[in-house]
Amino acid sequence: MSYAPISIEEKFTKFTEHFRPKVIAQMNDVQFKLVRVEGDFVWHSHADTDETFLILDGELAIDFRDGRVTLGPGEMFVVPKGKEHKPFAASEVRLMLIEPAGTKNTGDAGGAMTAPDDVWI
Amino acid sequence: MSYAPISIEEKFTKFTEHFRPKVIAQMNDVQFKLVRVEGDFVWHSHADTDETFLILDGELAIDFRDGRVTLGPGEMFVVPKGKEHKPFAASEVRLMLIEPAGTKNTGDAGGAMTAPDDVWI
Repeated sequence: MSYAPISIEEKFTKFTEHFRPKVIAQMNDVQFKLVRVEGDFVWHSHADTDETFLILDGELAIDFRDGRVTLGPGEMFVVPKGKEHKPFAASEVRLMLIEPAGTKNTGDAGGAMTAPDDVWI
Repeated sequence: MSYAPISIEEKFTKFTEHFRPKVIAQMNDVQFKLVRVEGDFVWHSHADTDETFLILDGELAIDFRDGRVTLGPGEMFVVPKGKEHKPFAASEVRLMLIEPAGTKNTGDAGGAMTAPDDVWI
């Protein structure tokens, strides 16, 4: 039987919109989501889970109420559960989010930028 | 307050040995581990968890009893729990394993290639 790898580059050809995570794989209850980010996201937190950012291209800033982390390609950061954060990208960033299935992109903030959380590509 | 990104490249400068996973981050109960692989690993499975392979450099083959998947840079694969597998790399591969804390590299097979499972760098 032949098994197929999941290609991150190939998956990114399937969408162009910003702030709309797409699921490409799942391990137990944890999903791997690709996202394109450009501009300001909203302040939010996730009460029940940490959230992992792994940067593939570009530079992402994540603001916290008490500081900031700036991430480039090949860098990652785990935002602890309950910690308010706001991602920002001056130009387009491609990244992978790793977080439990069911995690909403806007967490407990809701609002217009909330995306469906289980869209597979 | 200044927060520090986790740099995958920088972490790889901290070790050179093969088949000895190093933890660089944790999200809830899931750990992110860097590994250098070269040669043949042992047949094994993990009864309680899926296991995620994300290739950074090189080409990794994972043999199954009923087939094989070959992974290059930027490709990933989730080995389902309970599925026997044997990684192989003709020349050195650098990869990230994503799996629950406590997961042994040799799973239920044990033996001489079993590495400590919670070594942080």
